[in-house]
Amino acid sequence: MIRVGINGYGVIGKRVAYAVSMQDDMELVGICKQQPDYKARMAAKKGIKIYASGDEGAFKDSGLEISGALSDLVENVDVMVDATPGGIGIRNKAAYEKAGIKAVWQGGESHSIAGLSFNAYANYGAAVGARYARVVSCNTTGLIRTLFPLDKAFGISRVNATLVRRGADPSETGKGPINALEVDKHMPSHHGDDVKTVMPNLDIGTVAIKASTTLMHLHSVTVELRKEATREDVIEAYGQYRRIRIVSLADGISSTAQVMDIARDLGRGSGDMYEIAVWKEMTVRGRELHYFQAVHQESDVVPENIDAIRAMAGEKDQDRSIGKTDSSLHIGELYENYGNSDKS
Amino acid sequence: MIRVGINGYGVIGKRVAYAVSMQDDMELVGICKQQPDYKARMAAKKGIKIYASGDEGAFKDSGLEISGALSDLVENVDVMVDATPGGIGIRNKAAYEKAGIKAVWQGGESHSIAGLSFNAYANYGAAVGARYARVVSCNTTGLIRTLFPLDKAFGISRVNATLVRRGADPSETGKGPINALEVDKHMPSHHGDDVKTVMPNLDIGTVAIKASTTLMHLHSVTVELRKEATREDVIEAYGQYRRIRIVSLADGISSTAQVMDIARDLGRGSGDMYEIAVWKEMTVRGRELHYFQAVHQESDVVPENIDAIRAMAGEKDQDRSIGKTDSSLHIGELYENYGNSDKS
Amino acid sequence: MIRVGINGYGVIGKRVAYAVSMQDDMELVGICKQQPDYKARMAAKKGIKIYASGDEGAFKDSGLEISGALSDLVENVDVMVDATPGGIGIRNKAAYEKAGIKAVWQGGESHSIAGLSFNAYANYGAAVGARYARVVSCNTTGLIRTLFPLDKAFGISRVNATLVRRGADPSETGKGPINALEVDKHMPSHHGDDVKTVMPNLDIGTVAIKASTTLMHLHSVTVELRKEATREDVIEAYGQYRRIRIVSLADGISSTAQVMDIARDLGRGSGDMYEIAVWKEMTVRGRELHYFQAVHQESDVVPENIDAIRAMAGEKDQDRSIGKTDSSLHIGELYENYGNSDKS
Amino acid sequence: MIRVGINGYGVIGKRVAYAVSMQDDMELVGICKQQPDYKARMAAKKGIKIYASGDEGAFKDSGLEISGALSDLVENVDVMVDATPGGIGIRNKAAYEKAGIKAVWQGGESHSIAGLSFNAYANYGAAVGARYARVVSCNTTGLIRTLFPLDKAFGISRVNATLVRRGADPSETGKGPINALEVDKHMPSHHGDDVKTVMPNLDIGTVAIKASTTLMHLHSVTVELRKEATREDVIEAYGQYRRIRIVSLADGISSTAQVMDIARDLGRGSGDMYEIAVWKEMTVRGRELHYFQAVHQESDVVPENIDAIRAMAGEKDQDRSIGKTDSSLHIGELYENYGNSDKS
Repeated sequence: MIRVGINGYGVIGKRVAYAVSMQDDMELVGICKQQPDYKARMAAKKGIKIYASGDEGAFKDSGLEISGALSDLVENVDVMVDATPGGIGIRNKAAYEKAGIKAVWQGGESHSIAGLSFNAYANYGAAVGARYARVVSCNTTGLIRTLFPLDKAFGISRVNATLVRRGADPSETGKGPINALEVDKHMPSHHGDDVKTVMPNLDIGTVAIKASTTLMHLHSVTVELRKEATREDVIEAYGQYRRIRIVSLADGISSTAQVMDIARDLGRGSGDMYEIAVWKEMTVRGRELHYFQAVHQESDVVPENIDAIRAMAGEKDQDRSIGKTDSSLHIGELYENYGNSDKS
Repeated sequence: MIRVGINGYGVIGKRVAYAVSMQDDMELVGICKQQPDYKARMAAKKGIKIYASGDEGAFKDSGLEISGALSDLVENVDVMVDATPGGIGIRNKAAYEKAGIKAVWQGGESHSIAGLSFNAYANYGAAVGARYARVVSCNTTGLIRTLFPLDKAFGISRVNATLVRRGADPSETGKGPINALEVDKHMPSHHGDDVKTVMPNLDIGTVAIKASTTLMHLHSVTVELRKEATREDVIEAYGQYRRIRIVSLADGISSTAQVMDIARDLGRGSGDMYEIAVWKEMTVRGRELHYFQAVHQESDVVPENIDAIRAMAGEKDQDRSIGKTDSSLHIGELYENYGNSDKS
Repeated sequence: MIRVGINGYGVIGKRVAYAVSMQDDMELVGICKQQPDYKARMAAKKGIKIYASGDEGAFKDSGLEISGALSDLVENVDVMVDATPGGIGIRNKAAYEKAGIKAVWQGGESHSIAGLSFNAYANYGAAVGARYARVVSCNTTGLIRTLFPLDKAFGISRVNATLVRRGADPSETGKGPINALEVDKHMPSHHGDDVKTVMPNLDIGTVAIKASTTLMHLHSVTVELRKEATREDVIEAYGQYRRIRIVSLADGISSTAQVMDIARDLGRGSGDMYEIAVWKEMTVRGRELHYFQAVHQESDVVPENIDAIRAMAGEKDQDRSIGKTDSSLHIGELYENYGNSDKS
Repeated sequence: MIRVGINGYGVIGKRVAYAVSMQDDMELVGICKQQPDYKARMAAKKGIKIYASGDEGAFKDSGLEISGALSDLVENVDVMVDATPGGIGIRNKAAYEKAGIKAVWQGGESHSIAGLSFNAYANYGAAVGARYARVVSCNTTGLIRTLFPLDKAFGISRVNATLVRRGADPSETGKGPINALEVDKHMPSHHGDDVKTVMPNLDIGTVAIKASTTLMHLHSVTVELRKEATREDVIEAYGQYRRIRIVSLADGISSTAQVMDIARDLGRGSGDMYEIAVWKEMTVRGRELHYFQAVHQESDVVPENIDAIRAMAGEKDQDRSIGKTDSSLHIGELYENYGNSDKS
């Protein structure tokens, strides 16, 4: 059993904790939480051990029982998943180092924190036995998920992507924009370079726009392939990857709203969509391929975290790890259901 | 076993179908659906029998197997839950009448369709053995849930409520408003009169505003009680009702976003919040009580539909029915968790 | 000529500067600005003198010419309008005091900053010759505008209001909520008490909700009058106040969007709606009156600032000041146009 | 004097009417309106003659005076601007034909309605003396405005654009999406082909996404130039076109919200932004240029309509017409103000 701790129990941490608890080769030792708020109460009710990363007094006052501090949790785990807010994770590295444990960070930290940026499809092998890894961000994970298969099947000479990002997560009420479209202050955006931390030879440029929505990111991706491929070729290539879900306008799925409606109907943890949803209505023009994909920022990195943990703990077989993760989280189920009704 | 059919498989129909399938005294015979879209595919994948209410050819073209038409479904059920869009349900009445089956409509139809408007807390008994019933709308159900207990415990002399309504359901992308607050064209709004179809003696006035949100309705309710009550008295009175969930600003729950975050974390069907969420931070001024409540328009009527079915099928014991429904849907779980951290 | 300076050139400051420049008895000496951003460039282009309240170097680098610092501006004005962000205004008081000038603050500051909270209809006289005054906030101004006339005409025994507030101003892209309704952390909200700083004898309770919109606040107001009044009586009473604009569902005005559409069509500064828009479709039930009103948070306090300046500078005649302000800003124009088509 | 009538007084019609009234060589004879709503009242108040296109009785009941029907208006104009909703304009063609008048339609109609699609920069000459013309849609106008100068200065070999469209206009409260990103049901979208109705030799592919915003469209445009150009070269090329406005992140303009904030501050009709706003922070990579542009869907076609009228009435000089239009609407003013502060 791989003993796993989670530092930070927000949008990502909560989901990774759930996913860890669904693995038969992992044990969720506990989570580290700063505030005794409703999220902490929900965790306690589920029987999860809570360690206080902040003021223990606040927990005492709230009546929530804690099992210790972060310094206690590090003593009892093999791998710590650090899901603290971007930029905070680096501050915890010394504690993990001192305790001699392995650690997985999220995409909010820079590549240098671990020296290894991870995606289960693209570079699983690099993480086998590694001490530190960083799972790339939700957007970067989304891009790699659909670009890696294309590169493998057809070769890619150039990628241009416009990322329309959600303005805030569903539970974040303080962030905007309420009624505007905001350009990313970096042009090109950092996502292209971030993809290269995993696929170093890819020629990719990205720009980003923030929109007034909480559900998902929507990517408009233009790929110059090295050899021509029809839409059917591309869909067939994607068919081998459970973490890609083909959806179709012909089935009534025209927006991120319907994709998330499906997610809720699947009845998986928190109504999440672990898969990247790709519309089958792609455009092909010579070797230029265009497709839209929807990325669920709250959950697409969750299976990646699980695979990173397993690789770091020594599992060498990529397919075996991904298979276990997908099976436990019901990823790829109902795949064949979508996109078959389009006859145009 | 009560054999149940569902006519209409949208936001409400889908959820009632799920809830029926969770009852040990009910059998989901099948659903009636108009279009072979992704919702129909999801239903088929779950093993639900689909009957076509519209063009059977479209189903054939789509490759989705159907079990017949509405006229076939009515032959095999004891009770039909009609969850077709508002105003359409009345057109189906003749078919139910002819087949000699019982029927439950939703709040989009008028009271006269059944002559009996239903809420499990307020008038369960009236539906015992009844042929037809109408479960009142999401907003009306929300109001009755919290007003009935107050009326019983303290008496009510007058209610004024401002209902801030969601502009569209999460899966409806065509409706607005995007960036405005819209007043209901009826002043007062119809909700007050609708509450009276269940609580005829209540003196209530309501107005409504449509806002740019999909998650929940938020009600601002001012009640003139017949005898004084402290905030603690009110919370204690509500404590006996599992379909009311007390939430608190002190726990970090300040909006409908956090209420729905809890719902997703509860892991119940579709991440729903069957309970009406009431903030414990109420205002009391003499006999005037003010409280905020959040109403999940997609699901609060679901348990009401189940109790209506059971009452109409002959179950006389109100507590027994509500208890079975709540237990099967995990309603009221974790109740004690919320609102205990406020020390002001 | 009253020499006026404006400290802070954001949403309110920019508008007060414009309004001052439209008065024949006032001179806009200059504005104080912290950053050399596009707002500063627009001001410079209009020929407004800019004083730097922050880093003068940044202005130099930007190529924008400045006329000095805040300490220079205070030397040349009779009255300073402080429109800095809430809570910052108090820090500037010493500078105004030292320079021996008069000052007007906004509603983001507390009553005690000036000891006098101001509304032109309700307590103009109190500000005549005063050294300091505070114009109450947009919401409070909105409430006083429509409550004062009611109190005068019919008497008020009790007010309950639910304020649905905009989440952010149109130019603020960082604030939410994007898709939620958020209750104000104070129940009752502070607005009721704030109204009493101007109308001390009013019995009023308010609660507030934040919505995902940038256009206007929408107030749902229930008033218990001391003597009965018909809807027509109320509209007639309001007819004497140019800063109230009656609108009607019958004219196609159902939301804050149409109210602001009218504002843009009026062609006044920045497309503003200085008047409080009140729907003529009110509900009367005995002595209980309910009405909806829309409050343009960006501009309704602008004429109040002008009247405050004039009163403090010594103008004793309330009607004369309000008349001059309204005439210069085209307030109340087209009044008779709205609401005449309702025949129900 | 060119006598002009406007059929349809919605978002576009209202603005063209205003623009016509600002031209010294045109006379606004009247507008044709279907409903006696607040927009009609505003028009009447401004002294515009109203002709009823629908039920004259409704106008009589409303007390609004009308000057006749559409059949009367066509008798008195040289050119009719048809700004009725998309798809309705074609129904009016026979009436214009019969009356022997010229007509300008909007982009909601298909190219074939006039056989001539118009943009003042790209093909002014083609409209000189023409009987019929169609001003292309807001998005298409936006694309042509910035692509035509690039093509002229550097040559274009290929364009790929992702259009993030507003979901509804500010005054349309019924349309969504509220909280989703929706892909255009056509992939590629029609905008590329529509650009070719004016620039037939351009190789362009477009896709579109609908977002929850009312302010502006935001375009992410990737252009393969025929010869290399630096960012400075591009900005210099754009500098000759007043209908392009360079904006900059360095000035605090990061979203459509700030662009429209500037528009309101300019104090032009309805607070409009006739110019296409292009961010100076472009990305150049070899001959690949990427830029973001914001398109004000309510107003960017307004000057195009004016130029189309003038060309059709016989004015042969393109620069003269554009100059008159721009001067009368204050287009391009303050141009030099933006984008000068970026020193990176």
